[in-house]
Amino acid sequence: MIGKGLLIVISGPSGAGKGTICRELLKNNPQIRISISATTRKPRAGEEDGVNYHFITEDKFRQMIDEHEFLEYAVVYDNYYGTPERYVMNNLQNGNDVLLEIDIVGALQIKKKFRDAVFIFILPPSLGELRNRIVNRGTESPPDIEKRYDAAVSEIKQVMKYDYAIVNDNISKAIQDIEAIIRAEKCRVLRNYKEILSRF
Amino acid sequence: MIGKGLLIVISGPSGAGKGTICRELLKNNPQIRISISATTRKPRAGEEDGVNYHFITEDKFRQMIDEHEFLEYAVVYDNYYGTPERYVMNNLQNGNDVLLEIDIVGALQIKKKFRDAVFIFILPPSLGELRNRIVNRGTESPPDIEKRYDAAVSEIKQVMKYDYAIVNDNISKAIQDIEAIIRAEKCRVLRNYKEILSRF
Repeated sequence: MIGKGLLIVISGPSGAGKGTICRELLKNNPQIRISISATTRKPRAGEEDGVNYHFITEDKFRQMIDEHEFLEYAVVYDNYYGTPERYVMNNLQNGNDVLLEIDIVGALQIKKKFRDAVFIFILPPSLGELRNRIVNRGTESPPDIEKRYDAAVSEIKQVMKYDYAIVNDNISKAIQDIEAIIRAEKCRVLRNYKEILSRF
Repeated sequence: MIGKGLLIVISGPSGAGKGTICRELLKNNPQIRISISATTRKPRAGEEDGVNYHFITEDKFRQMIDEHEFLEYAVVYDNYYGTPERYVMNNLQNGNDVLLEIDIVGALQIKKKFRDAVFIFILPPSLGELRNRIVNRGTESPPDIEKRYDAAVSEIKQVMKYDYAIVNDNISKAIQDIEAIIRAEKCRVLRNYKEILSRF
């Protein structure tokens, strides 16, 4: 149903370092494509349309919902975020792996549609370090910092809904863990038994 | 229950190359211990007691069965093969990974006792290559070659009982696959959630 590519879902709280991990992972693994989410939130400093997100209006977002163009969507901090379906499906069907960096609400929607997808949760080294990273990013106001920190703590309690958890205390170790997960998942009998039985 | 080490079960038909893969895997991964099976079969040329197998008499084997000293045992080609329990349990409890290179009957016994164990099936590149390898090994008489070949073909039909399948068309690729599986399995939420929830 999803072709030969692997659908990889990566989530984790603000400050866990998902963004950096995903960027580095793509550099070393040309068969992986990242799905760019659509969002109604305003771009942060340095963010580019079509690179970090497709920045669209709320009207446009609602229209895409009505036309069933999202694989999943969610409202987070009063903004919409969604994964456009076509890009993901085309790449999976062509045998590329597709990476979705999405929140837990979105991940659970994907889990219902794609039982073959692989769900990875990125953890910060500790709660203290998590708070430091949110503060040091400097993009949030103090009340938003607290809001994100509290949200992060409750998100971590949902780690059980994921297949794998990686503690991001070292970027290159975290990337090697994800590469190992992708390689291992491709050896799963459940993904290969038809080919095996036809070959032997 | 099985401590922090990973119990890795590797099976595959004669000629798939399990033995070579396991030896090479141990060279690069000092945290992995291999469990040496006990058997009542005669040593082949070059095999050493305590290295390839613990070669024991049928009387001794039956006594060990009676004293519940095996994690699993099976009769294959009229010979007994079994995994002594103590070595495996001690190593898992000390945090070492333990590799069992055993047949399917034994693997299914382990599966009942250790739901956390990881089951890997090694496949030959093709049936033609499988026959060549059994013939070229030169340790079997022609009727035994046919017996092993037929057994191999029906063993492969049971690949669905394993978690992972690796085609051994290239030794170093096969070893990297197994190393990735071990690394990925250690990131599984199911193995780590107690530690994660106590830390966050």
